[in-house]
Amino acid sequence: MAPPSHCHGVHHNGTAAVPVETETVPPLLGSRLLDAEEFRRQGHQVVDFIADYYASMEDYPVHPNVTPGFLRRQLPSDAPSRPKPDAFAAALRDVHDLILPGVTHWQSPRHFAHFPASSSTVGALGEALAAGINVVPFTWAASPAATELEMVVVDWLGKALHLPRGLLFCGGGGGTLLGTSCEAILCAIVAARERKLAEIGSRRIEDLVVYCSDQTHFAVRKAARIAGIHRDNCREIATCLEGMFALSPADLQAAMQADVDAGLVPLFLCATVGTTQTTAVDPIRELCAVAATHGVWVHVDAAYAGSALVCPEFRHVLDGAEAVDTFSMNAHKWLLANNDCCALWARKPSLLTAALGTEQEYILKSAAADGHDDVVDYKDWSMTLTRRFRSLKLWLVLRCYGVEGLRDHVRAHVGMAASFENMVRTDARFEVVVPRHFALVCFRLLSPEKLGGEKTANELNRRLLEEVNATSSGPYMSSAMVGGNYMLRCAVGSTLTEERNVREAWKVVQDRAASLLRKMEITCSVLA
Amino acid sequence: MAPPSHCHGVHHNGTAAVPVETETVPPLLGSRLLDAEEFRRQGHQVVDFIADYYASMEDYPVHPNVTPGFLRRQLPSDAPSRPKPDAFAAALRDVHDLILPGVTHWQSPRHFAHFPASSSTVGALGEALAAGINVVPFTWAASPAATELEMVVVDWLGKALHLPRGLLFCGGGGGTLLGTSCEAILCAIVAARERKLAEIGSRRIEDLVVYCSDQTHFAVRKAARIAGIHRDNCREIATCLEGMFALSPADLQAAMQADVDAGLVPLFLCATVGTTQTTAVDPIRELCAVAATHGVWVHVDAAYAGSALVCPEFRHVLDGAEAVDTFSMNAHKWLLANNDCCALWARKPSLLTAALGTEQEYILKSAAADGHDDVVDYKDWSMTLTRRFRSLKLWLVLRCYGVEGLRDHVRAHVGMAASFENMVRTDARFEVVVPRHFALVCFRLLSPEKLGGEKTANELNRRLLEEVNATSSGPYMSSAMVGGNYMLRCAVGSTLTEERNVREAWKVVQDRAASLLRKMEITCSVLA
Repeated sequence: MAPPSHCHGVHHNGTAAVPVETETVPPLLGSRLLDAEEFRRQGHQVVDFIADYYASMEDYPVHPNVTPGFLRRQLPSDAPSRPKPDAFAAALRDVHDLILPGVTHWQSPRHFAHFPASSSTVGALGEALAAGINVVPFTWAASPAATELEMVVVDWLGKALHLPRGLLFCGGGGGTLLGTSCEAILCAIVAARERKLAEIGSRRIEDLVVYCSDQTHFAVRKAARIAGIHRDNCREIATCLEGMFALSPADLQAAMQADVDAGLVPLFLCATVGTTQTTAVDPIRELCAVAATHGVWVHVDAAYAGSALVCPEFRHVLDGAEAVDTFSMNAHKWLLANNDCCALWARKPSLLTAALGTEQEYILKSAAADGHDDVVDYKDWSMTLTRRFRSLKLWLVLRCYGVEGLRDHVRAHVGMAASFENMVRTDARFEVVVPRHFALVCFRLLSPEKLGGEKTANELNRRLLEEVNATSSGPYMSSAMVGGNYMLRCAVGSTLTEERNVREAWKVVQDRAASLLRKMEITCSVLA
Repeated sequence: MAPPSHCHGVHHNGTAAVPVETETVPPLLGSRLLDAEEFRRQGHQVVDFIADYYASMEDYPVHPNVTPGFLRRQLPSDAPSRPKPDAFAAALRDVHDLILPGVTHWQSPRHFAHFPASSSTVGALGEALAAGINVVPFTWAASPAATELEMVVVDWLGKALHLPRGLLFCGGGGGTLLGTSCEAILCAIVAARERKLAEIGSRRIEDLVVYCSDQTHFAVRKAARIAGIHRDNCREIATCLEGMFALSPADLQAAMQADVDAGLVPLFLCATVGTTQTTAVDPIRELCAVAATHGVWVHVDAAYAGSALVCPEFRHVLDGAEAVDTFSMNAHKWLLANNDCCALWARKPSLLTAALGTEQEYILKSAAADGHDDVVDYKDWSMTLTRRFRSLKLWLVLRCYGVEGLRDHVRAHVGMAASFENMVRTDARFEVVVPRHFALVCFRLLSPEKLGGEKTANELNRRLLEEVNATSSGPYMSSAMVGGNYMLRCAVGSTLTEERNVREAWKVVQDRAASLLRKMEITCSVLA
């Protein structure tokens, strides 16, 4: 495996190692690799493949019944050397025969787990278009239209979501499109950290403290840890059912004061609009007031529920948001912009660029851009330099469905979730554990006293979820453990979900519950 | 703008605020938003749109002649409310008429700037397919086939690139697909930081030091800063032309020893195979030996040149890589996997997951996965939880083009760059500043003595680049400033580039140089 000696030491010689001479240039391949007509032919195959997949979506079990290693065992251990010319058609057959049967079908109308990853025709095609054009808009100059479209569309989206104008370009702030909430939160924490350390004249990251609730998504703890905040300095303030699992401003104030008394430095608060487990809504105005007394950066994570803000009837959850420093939401969750598309807005983008920005000679600056305040180099707004043309997709979604169309979409799901909630409420064997805010219903089966009552409730519901998810052609749900209670989560949000899917899902839950209770009663009576 | 009072306090009431009653559920929209037949119809439009774009690629100037604000001024300041049914066709017209004229055409055969963002038919369609299927494989259970395909394809790629087996799953390590090198480097630094702090029993991030050369991509400083490493603790060790701009092991050893003597803690070294400015290659084996004496984590960033490793004649640049902790390269740069696709491999993935991992109840664990060592939850390998189905694209590229096809592709560009280099060398007015390693040629116009010689050389070359890039239907190049010398960079790598494009590019450079020299001589003679 030793390299040929003439290739050795390429970085030590004074002259270049030129392994391939110009005389031996192989046949040029560009025209085969990116030929317009071949793209057209294979592209139409792919479009039909995806359309056929959508048409047959209901035939797939939402979650595949496979065991670890099922796919690795079926694929060769090395890439092919010289594939045959028809390799693409064969590969599409493999996607159909080997891969699709092994994915979880997030676009199934029976997918009620986690949060939705909402797809739309225009969202998927926006991704396809961006992949085809394939530009890298890391600076304005590197693709002016991509940067400007991003600036336009984050303002469009921010207005559609009723965000405070101070977060938008038109109000002196500004936004950007990232991949995920983790990135958005990390950018915010790093900007807050740099500002705070400069302010107090310290390098001691170990003194800084981050605040959230015990309902906050792990993304915050992960981002804090990446930014160097010690695990011990992440305060997960306890919430309770009585407070609807919202973060209490009084408890936050007490936690911050305790840290100050201990010589620590409160840095960052992540408030959530729509927590992952139960879609709890933290009271932004009151939390911002507490944070302000300690000079703490406030980020609002509305990863899921941010999409609902397109409806005026949900606008109230933003009360007081004029005071937040940064705000993020995932348009890929419930706003028809296929994965990935996280929007981050900042009241003072200069704090992001101060923490994350750079200048390098090898990044060509357009002379046209010099001296223009409206030139944004998005590489300085986030943690990555290379970035995708995400704005094209989001622009297409807003342009083609319109704000009213997005409202219809969100309201349809909210309505279906309300139906599901009502059905749960009318069955005395169940309870809705946490009142529904958006389109997630958290519920559980009550354990009859003779089966052990509260003591066995969690185990009962664990088994219920397992049985529901094991039902062929049934719904696929996930779970939450909140306040010691294990509950099932029914998150309505798949684009294809219709009222009938929700009714059928409830029917499966009822049937499985009845069967489970019967089995357990028999076991109990045998044991007794 | 006050919200309706009945919506107030959703998180304070004991009961849910249900803004939309079940009776008022609007018409279901899912079937319109993700209808198979509409997808087929609009999808074929998009495929034809992209194919037409490829067919007309040569008609576009590579870089648009636009001024900041050109697009923002042409678009409305708000998203539409209720678009007409034909909005998609109108939007595609806008993409053609407003957006395409304003992007930098990275796929143009005359794009020689930065590094390539190589596209292929299969790469673009892999993205389209992934966007259509739209799964979120954050855990194995969340989409088993997506996770397993990623495990398979990172091993395929690692073998194709001749990586040490210890970095692959088949050799006890493992890899993952991220968006960018910034992410990969950040993950590596955070894993190194957590290991080191645990090892020395400290929380003092401010004592940790990161090492690279003055040629290392800014991504390293950015990642280090995000991870909390102080700006003062990033050692950019000077390189020189005589050393081919490679990082000197002796200089590294001296820097590390000086830090140890000063009470600091050497943490992390980023060695580069193919630096951004001149594609310099750091000597991995010797650097690893130095790093080992200080317990320093070694990451190799082969963002660009990693693709070349598919050719055995470049394998030697990996000599000694068995000792590195992590290795990353961007398959979206030069390996036909459209943006984005960064592969990261680790010798001990458990160090990544120890730093970045989590467990949460609401992330449903498949019972089938319990107790299986071969279940990978990729959310624990990187900084994000949500992730895209990138493996589908990379698998399609390897499956359809094969390892030999990728070699042809890389060698074709290396051959064209060798041609360009030879042309520069045969013109006495120019010099090749740094011998070529891969497919980047760094060159500059020599400034005649009567024009000021060395003193004016940088200014002369700045103007030359400006004029070259301003040439309609000419090439688009970028620049580097290395060792005080401003130079032009001609990076051959666009999939569509052919030998004739390289010849024509050189012709434009020669013409512009001649014209520039003439103009300057006239100016000089007038002034004299």
